[in-house]
Amino acid sequence: MDNKPASIAELALKAHADWRGKLEIAPRARADSAESLALAYTPGVAAACLAIKDDPSKAYELTRRWNTVAVVTDGSAVLGLGDIGPQAGMPVMEGKCVLFKAFADVDAFPILIGTKDADAIVETVVNIAGTFGGINLEDISSPRCFDIERRLQAALDIPVFHDDQHGTAIVVGAAMINALRVAGKSMDSARIVINGMGAAGCAIARRLLSLGAQDLLLVDRYGILARGAESELHMHGEQAALALTTNPGLQRGSLSDAMRGADAFIGVSAGNIVSKGMVASMNPGAVVFAMANPTPEIMPDDAKAAGALVVGTGRSDYPNQVNNVLCFPGMFRGALDCRAREINEPMKRAASIALAELACQSSPGSPDKLGPENILPRPFDPRVGKAVAEAVCRAARESGAARI
Amino acid sequence: MDNKPASIAELALKAHADWRGKLEIAPRARADSAESLALAYTPGVAAACLAIKDDPSKAYELTRRWNTVAVVTDGSAVLGLGDIGPQAGMPVMEGKCVLFKAFADVDAFPILIGTKDADAIVETVVNIAGTFGGINLEDISSPRCFDIERRLQAALDIPVFHDDQHGTAIVVGAAMINALRVAGKSMDSARIVINGMGAAGCAIARRLLSLGAQDLLLVDRYGILARGAESELHMHGEQAALALTTNPGLQRGSLSDAMRGADAFIGVSAGNIVSKGMVASMNPGAVVFAMANPTPEIMPDDAKAAGALVVGTGRSDYPNQVNNVLCFPGMFRGALDCRAREINEPMKRAASIALAELACQSSPGSPDKLGPENILPRPFDPRVGKAVAEAVCRAARESGAARI
Repeated sequence: MDNKPASIAELALKAHADWRGKLEIAPRARADSAESLALAYTPGVAAACLAIKDDPSKAYELTRRWNTVAVVTDGSAVLGLGDIGPQAGMPVMEGKCVLFKAFADVDAFPILIGTKDADAIVETVVNIAGTFGGINLEDISSPRCFDIERRLQAALDIPVFHDDQHGTAIVVGAAMINALRVAGKSMDSARIVINGMGAAGCAIARRLLSLGAQDLLLVDRYGILARGAESELHMHGEQAALALTTNPGLQRGSLSDAMRGADAFIGVSAGNIVSKGMVASMNPGAVVFAMANPTPEIMPDDAKAAGALVVGTGRSDYPNQVNNVLCFPGMFRGALDCRAREINEPMKRAASIALAELACQSSPGSPDKLGPENILPRPFDPRVGKAVAEAVCRAARESGAARI
Repeated sequence: MDNKPASIAELALKAHADWRGKLEIAPRARADSAESLALAYTPGVAAACLAIKDDPSKAYELTRRWNTVAVVTDGSAVLGLGDIGPQAGMPVMEGKCVLFKAFADVDAFPILIGTKDADAIVETVVNIAGTFGGINLEDISSPRCFDIERRLQAALDIPVFHDDQHGTAIVVGAAMINALRVAGKSMDSARIVINGMGAAGCAIARRLLSLGAQDLLLVDRYGILARGAESELHMHGEQAALALTTNPGLQRGSLSDAMRGADAFIGVSAGNIVSKGMVASMNPGAVVFAMANPTPEIMPDDAKAAGALVVGTGRSDYPNQVNNVLCFPGMFRGALDCRAREINEPMKRAASIALAELACQSSPGSPDKLGPENILPRPFDPRVGKAVAEAVCRAARESGAARI
């Protein structure tokens, strides 16, 4: 029938064979004469070495550390492909690094880790962290990703950011601010259901709590997360922690039960698991973010037909694409610009709010006014990286995370 | 008096402040439209991921692994500056990566290791090795460097090469072939003295043995290395192993004693420790490579005045510069081009011989004929990288180290 997906795969495979790698190293210094070599290499280079030895902060002025981020993966949760290993994940990592450079002029380099042992991953990244100004964790499976990120951030004085969790959550946060605005509802009174309690689902829950949500229902394959419920037996630490601060009415039941009377649904789960009837059972002015890839939890047209007011997906071929490229380049640009020690709660919150505000201001890159089909800036809107970076930088300075 | 060194340092420091890092990441794929993103990133990228998952060797065709080398250091022996730490060593590592790209189009990226524990260094590099097609160890202090290199090469199926040892030794080997040729002597009968038994000195000894030398005297601060001598108490494993295959006459004594009647002297030690009298005590047609930096063991003019026929140094302002940029770019180019599993003895030997042959053929880049002031190609001779790469590739294939 529709052979478009096959055709993109073929084109992409051919493009990758032509590129032979989507990144290369570009020298910023010349090495074409004895004179240029004497400055960039011996003997002149010794002066730069000694300056850093005397004052370690000079590493941020005399070497590329100020602008360099590692994109670290063990290849255990790559796209929707699962545990395909780090080498097979490399095309994604290279692509991510391309986006870092294209959208925020950040020099990102992939680091593939050949072990899935959390202790070894933490130790390895700690040992090489001095090379970088920040660490972007990528496509590391849940629940190890929570522990790895927490331990790395505790050990390091540079930002550590698991994009699959926080990048997605920050953009969903922005989208939810504006979707509720469009629906005439407020974050603190809306009932929001999140289905799928992997890395992204847990981070989205935390983000919405930080943005003021007070009536969250979290759902996984065992049903609604609730303190004291039998499903608690299946919870990992992150889920159990969230069960304490969500579901205030201790509601139990299935996804269908959760959605009945809800104001918003966020799916980071699997395709085609939400029916039109389930959307129809939500409150009027319902918000549906069906972000499973490539097939959403419910197709946007079906969700609309069932009464949803605002529908978002992870796909570029429908309105309201929740795309974490809206966040991570600007997030690291901002963190690097102020030499942040970490990416903390206020910085993440600021990024969500900045993105939401941007969608309220039309521009050549995002021509439409805020509305049901325009709750987020477009990925190629040139204002995005700068706006996120400035908001992140400001929040870092106000919260004490910034070094400069 | 001569304020040139201060002036180069000042210029280099200013240049480093202007560069703010001598490397950056250059995307080879576009990310300026939804269409280009769909090929370089999601959803198209999944096709490249799956192709590598099905056939891991495709990582060398669909990602940059085929051309990427890590320049790994713990900053424990940077230039002549010693243990200044990895961050302070970064300007050298960035410079090295610039040379890799400029001289052989290899994409090299610095990896700073924040520990000097050999076990941790080995484990860390093993864990990230899948990112790279080769590992260049740099400025790691002796004797740890021997153990680290050996263990890494045993654990990995990509080339591991400690340039401070082997790069220098390969170029010295080439220089010695031609210096003895100029002096009308032969490798197998010449008495050659090496002073300084650190990483470079030990590797030079091994290289010369591999090239046929049979009468080597190795000297360190305790005097001539000899089996059974009291100096054996001070030897580390690498030195003790060399003591078994050198100094066949079990000669003992000081550097002065060693040089008396020798045909060649190689210094990788400290400035100004060789007198004109010591050079005058050598055999006629003496070869003197005084490579301590920046001040040689004896200044070239003094060595000449004392009767040396061929004099080399590590400096660019005298003839016969022994510069390891003649080796490492082409060495890795060759190893990467045939996807070598290691850099073995025949590959190192082939590089020395190729460099020596090149100096016998004048070219626009190296206009002079073989002679006392022309025993090596010039660093900017455009033939060098290619000639070394081809010789290395051929040797890798003949010795079974090549994958393609």
